[in-house]
Amino acid sequence: MRIAVDAMGGDHAPRAIVEGAVHAARDFGVEPVLVGIPARIEAELRRVGAGALRVQVVEAPDVIEMHEHPAMALRRKRRSSIAVAVQQVHEGYADAVVSAGHTGAAMGAGLLILGRIKGIERPAIAAVLPTVGGRPVVLLDAGANVDCQPQHLVQFGLMGDIYAREVLGIPSPRVGLLSNGEEDIKGNDVTIRAAGILRDSKLNFVGNVEGKDLFFGLADVVVCDGFVGNVVLKCGEGLVLAIRQIFTSELRGWRGRLLAFYLLPLLGPARRIWGRLDYREHGGAPLLGINGVCIIAHGRSNARAIRNAIRAAMDAATHHVPARIISAIHGEKAAALPCLR
Amino acid sequence: MRIAVDAMGGDHAPRAIVEGAVHAARDFGVEPVLVGIPARIEAELRRVGAGALRVQVVEAPDVIEMHEHPAMALRRKRRSSIAVAVQQVHEGYADAVVSAGHTGAAMGAGLLILGRIKGIERPAIAAVLPTVGGRPVVLLDAGANVDCQPQHLVQFGLMGDIYAREVLGIPSPRVGLLSNGEEDIKGNDVTIRAAGILRDSKLNFVGNVEGKDLFFGLADVVVCDGFVGNVVLKCGEGLVLAIRQIFTSELRGWRGRLLAFYLLPLLGPARRIWGRLDYREHGGAPLLGINGVCIIAHGRSNARAIRNAIRAAMDAATHHVPARIISAIHGEKAAALPCLR
Repeated sequence: MRIAVDAMGGDHAPRAIVEGAVHAARDFGVEPVLVGIPARIEAELRRVGAGALRVQVVEAPDVIEMHEHPAMALRRKRRSSIAVAVQQVHEGYADAVVSAGHTGAAMGAGLLILGRIKGIERPAIAAVLPTVGGRPVVLLDAGANVDCQPQHLVQFGLMGDIYAREVLGIPSPRVGLLSNGEEDIKGNDVTIRAAGILRDSKLNFVGNVEGKDLFFGLADVVVCDGFVGNVVLKCGEGLVLAIRQIFTSELRGWRGRLLAFYLLPLLGPARRIWGRLDYREHGGAPLLGINGVCIIAHGRSNARAIRNAIRAAMDAATHHVPARIISAIHGEKAAALPCLR
Repeated sequence: MRIAVDAMGGDHAPRAIVEGAVHAARDFGVEPVLVGIPARIEAELRRVGAGALRVQVVEAPDVIEMHEHPAMALRRKRRSSIAVAVQQVHEGYADAVVSAGHTGAAMGAGLLILGRIKGIERPAIAAVLPTVGGRPVVLLDAGANVDCQPQHLVQFGLMGDIYAREVLGIPSPRVGLLSNGEEDIKGNDVTIRAAGILRDSKLNFVGNVEGKDLFFGLADVVVCDGFVGNVVLKCGEGLVLAIRQIFTSELRGWRGRLLAFYLLPLLGPARRIWGRLDYREHGGAPLLGINGVCIIAHGRSNARAIRNAIRAAMDAATHHVPARIISAIHGEKAAALPCLR
């Protein structure tokens, strides 16, 4: 299996990207296709000592920066690393693409080059989050679409159902709608209308899910618009970071230092705990609704996060997620969804 | 100072409410006016041993339950504990009111009985959250208005500015807009239009604030619609609970038990850490924009949370928050806000 990797995208590119790809090649037997400026990629490959591993390099002279307007940048920089990486999938050379660069540009390239699946009006980013029970929850949209209509949320539910079923192996995923209360009357105008459609659908719709339930596995798929999804994800990330910092600050001073001595044996479990909440462990988020597998990794991805994002790309490609979404749209589940077109 | 307390509202009412009010009377010298079913309130007062403390009881035979439609319930149950408690403020008998009951009913009673401040179209719930640095952040709206227009968000900013200035003592509060990215182009339709108005205002507007910045004190006031605010608050609450549970589950088994032995000296700091993130420590959330001080406490409030909510009510009443909002609307800050009417 070949995975195209945008070697120039991300805060720690190309170093962390190349290193993560090499780890993935070694650990999973995958063949990364590193797309970007060859001289810089090859320098990193030598540093890591990729040696005998099968790693390819494909040239792309341009890089889309974080501050650029995605659509405009994609038009102006036709040979950007993200566009050329997505092109590898379009041409059938790679099975999937991974990027930790500009999310908007990755989405734009996916839409322009691979195209959206007929029946899905808005592709969505699906974030796979850990829960207390250990079974993951799929939150979508995690940031692709800031303003959504009810039918978009319903389409997110359908795509989340497929992903949870095919990739996470959950037989009948419970689909919930993120809202400001469990009761049916709770919600904003868009979510209340979406709930009406979802209730009539063949999806295993469990109704409204509150923010506090997200991490307790009350639903396998949680649907929201991309504005809310992004804010929620970043709040969670910030809160975990804040708790860590509070712990660290509590361990200063002479009393803290004394306590730190007792803390040493705790390091193992503490690492496992943070690991469960660490986005780096969970790899990237698939962009669902386009004709191809595209994984969006966190902009701050380190080598471990990239390695895990490549594993997520392999999983989605192995399970033919785009093809499954296409057949679901023509299948029984979608028959009851008048909003699919 | 007299504070009217809805003794029948909340998951642990009237027990926790009465107990919290008694603690507030003892600790802060306040005079609670407990509103509800006298026999039940008096039984709790005897249990706690209120004895020499000045605590009043005002009869209200009805209780609005959590599942009821707020407006309908307020019409049908004219002598509900929440309505009678708010009435105490309206009649000038109490300086403020506290309720841990149905949030919608508390808001409705506040609006109907006290009325909204002219110029503020939508009253908002302001949650005061802890940050890593120790300086609190005011998040509003925390759940009163699910669908907002840009001018509502601007009005929230103005009210948050007053609250942070008067009650929290922050001289020139930095007002941020919760969004899906720091850049000006990020946001949904409503937040982008609100940012335009806020930029031209006399508020100390610092632009977009991301979810991850919320707990790091990058702004003193963070504005969002009530749907997003509620989801964010409950996600944070759920995440803190999830982290606690993961810690507990890691401490099971023989290895865990061994570690628990080492953990004992940590209990003190751990309590302080959770305390900083615990809504019970931070008391209730003021409902801003009505002609009176109304504090909304968490439905799951225990006695300590009620005690702290009463303290929050005392603070807001001492600083004449409603009067300050009224003068701000007629002052220089609002002059540049065409949306105030």
